[in-house]
Amino acid sequence: MSAKNAFYAQSGGVTAVINASACGVLETARQHPDRIDKVYAGRNGIIGALTEDLTDTSAESDEAIAALRYTPSGAFGSCRYKLKSLEANRREYERLIEVFRAHDIGYFFYNGGGDSADTCYKVSQLSASLGYPVQAIHIPKTVDNDLPITDNCPGFGSVAKYIATSTLEASFDVRSMAKTSTKVFVLEVMGRHAGWIAAAGALAEDHGIPVLVLFPEVEFDQTRFLAAVQEKVERHGFCTVVVSEGAHHPDGRFLAEQGTRDAFGHAQLGGAAPVVANMVKEAFGYKFHWAVADYLQRAARHLASKTDVEQAYAMGRAGVEFALAGHNAVMPTVRRLSNDPYAWEVGEAPLAEVANVEKFMPKEFISADGYGITQACKDYLIPLIQGEDYPPFEHGLPKYVTLQNRAVERRLGLFEVE
Amino acid sequence: MSAKNAFYAQSGGVTAVINASACGVLETARQHPDRIDKVYAGRNGIIGALTEDLTDTSAESDEAIAALRYTPSGAFGSCRYKLKSLEANRREYERLIEVFRAHDIGYFFYNGGGDSADTCYKVSQLSASLGYPVQAIHIPKTVDNDLPITDNCPGFGSVAKYIATSTLEASFDVRSMAKTSTKVFVLEVMGRHAGWIAAAGALAEDHGIPVLVLFPEVEFDQTRFLAAVQEKVERHGFCTVVVSEGAHHPDGRFLAEQGTRDAFGHAQLGGAAPVVANMVKEAFGYKFHWAVADYLQRAARHLASKTDVEQAYAMGRAGVEFALAGHNAVMPTVRRLSNDPYAWEVGEAPLAEVANVEKFMPKEFISADGYGITQACKDYLIPLIQGEDYPPFEHGLPKYVTLQNRAVERRLGLFEVE
Repeated sequence: MSAKNAFYAQSGGVTAVINASACGVLETARQHPDRIDKVYAGRNGIIGALTEDLTDTSAESDEAIAALRYTPSGAFGSCRYKLKSLEANRREYERLIEVFRAHDIGYFFYNGGGDSADTCYKVSQLSASLGYPVQAIHIPKTVDNDLPITDNCPGFGSVAKYIATSTLEASFDVRSMAKTSTKVFVLEVMGRHAGWIAAAGALAEDHGIPVLVLFPEVEFDQTRFLAAVQEKVERHGFCTVVVSEGAHHPDGRFLAEQGTRDAFGHAQLGGAAPVVANMVKEAFGYKFHWAVADYLQRAARHLASKTDVEQAYAMGRAGVEFALAGHNAVMPTVRRLSNDPYAWEVGEAPLAEVANVEKFMPKEFISADGYGITQACKDYLIPLIQGEDYPPFEHGLPKYVTLQNRAVERRLGLFEVE
Repeated sequence: MSAKNAFYAQSGGVTAVINASACGVLETARQHPDRIDKVYAGRNGIIGALTEDLTDTSAESDEAIAALRYTPSGAFGSCRYKLKSLEANRREYERLIEVFRAHDIGYFFYNGGGDSADTCYKVSQLSASLGYPVQAIHIPKTVDNDLPITDNCPGFGSVAKYIATSTLEASFDVRSMAKTSTKVFVLEVMGRHAGWIAAAGALAEDHGIPVLVLFPEVEFDQTRFLAAVQEKVERHGFCTVVVSEGAHHPDGRFLAEQGTRDAFGHAQLGGAAPVVANMVKEAFGYKFHWAVADYLQRAARHLASKTDVEQAYAMGRAGVEFALAGHNAVMPTVRRLSNDPYAWEVGEAPLAEVANVEKFMPKEFISADGYGITQACKDYLIPLIQGEDYPPFEHGLPKYVTLQNRAVERRLGLFEVE
């Protein structure tokens, strides 16, 4: 079997550890020069493939590739772009094959979440539908932890560790101030449909912090929520509220919606925290503070979970190993073997069962009152935030790598992405 | 000389390292049992003294006191409460003396910012005006870095490290997303009047990040700002804006004011980030994300600056040493000896020159266009964010200490704080 080139790209919202997966892919590929010649990275995800905008990772030093393990964000650029069906946009699929053929690409590694798994699945069907041999492997990534089958998603453990730590730290702050100043602190976190990230905030509870979580899975009830806040403040002197950006009223309206939509038609959210904070202020006059963590939470490589980094790397490595073993249309997964001591192994899922399926918080992970998490949820979460994996620092700041991203010479004409 | 008891309290907004100063005070006091018997901590700052709400730190183990060094927030509770003048509220001063006398307090250590220095200065004058011998020492603390005389304030270095790191990390994220999604990221940081914290965000610039800073020291000019954003986005594909909560229009209106005021009459701010983000969106249609760091920034002990932790501890230790040397109405300071290699020593400032004086960014620290920092500013900032000083972690979260705070038996009647 002669060596083929591989294509790797990152898609969707990036994370603190998606580059650790890239590191796993690239380091593993470099160990198999007989099977994988060059790995070309697509600039900005699938758009790089469509527009033949490729960078040659073989131009990067081993040191630079190793530094990806501790560099947050997507080193090759990401995209929010979903391939339509073959029927709806045959032109794009034919272009992909043209690019793959021009650059002798036999392996397609796509690193992303649910929408990206769909894109990867469509690519995996090219062999059958358009007669071009390519093996497509999806590498899981999403801070939202909403992919099915896999026990958890690389990217989530680190954001969970960040939100749990930040909730704990800010709550200690509020506790200090509550006598004469701030009594309620509201932290807004990511999670459009699934409350996994918000759930992590509730881990501060075991450290003496009164926390109320507003999950997207639980319809917001203002009267009941305000009563819960009042009860916490009267008992503890203060209260922390962790609100998911996806928290919504019974009629589906988000607590705060900016009214704009992203490329996938998802509502662009933000601003639930000030809404909740002002609601509390109006009801009780409590002085409040609020924070919106936004990109800080998913980019916080300085506080990554060691477990998460290891799993992100392992998913990248397994993706290459699956490809070398001849697999197609699959995704490596994390399979949990036990909670305590935590043990896991790499599993494998068919992409057909992953694409476009969202995993929500199980009902038994949310406490009866809807504002907290159960012991089962803690048992699930705690292993995922285990361990620290600090990046190197220089002059007081993390020393993250920016790759050269040397362009691969174009062999084809231009192509306009719609 | 017989041993006296000491009073220690924390005041104003707390920081990631104010407890490191407490640690310095308490560990140093424990080394001088012949001069300092017990250290009583005031619950919630000066309010604890006025209401005789004291806790006995001698009940805490050496291990618990040592853990204060890596625990953020104020372990004894803080307050926003400023003593009026002796003429305006003689009742409070007489009460303080009554409490000091009842508990044999000869040393008063007050750990806070400019308003707290004023309170401490007033207490230092009690000997003269009311004939009670007490030595009052102020221990500097403020994330805003706005105290005069001292080269910098404990608390600032850690928030600067957090904001510089977060700006860098989130900007890497935006850079990944910019092709098809977010092009402008806005991070709102603390700093009502002084732009020191915002300035730290500009340190990401040397790591290839296009950053625009909106300082409180520079009047906001919407047209000029939008042109600067457009220029950055066109050149780099993306742009990060770090906006100080104190950024304001030429007429003095803050970019976003919630309309409420705190106990000192300061406007309570928040929400400049969404205002700026929407302004950019309306002008150019750029997709944006915004974050408000709020308490996360000043509580982030997990990313404290080692320099800051050491200085915070040293200020606490020096405060006790000054007291033992018979000083009154002073504050230990950081005196910078050189930038590179960074060297500093403990200095001493008279409280009369510290109280109520705010230090702003020098003009020569802000770049000519008003949106960045100069090399002189970088030379000033970089030593302050040097080094990491991670707290211990357990089960994935920092292991912070909560003290017992055992109450000291009351000897006096109740007292109502106005």
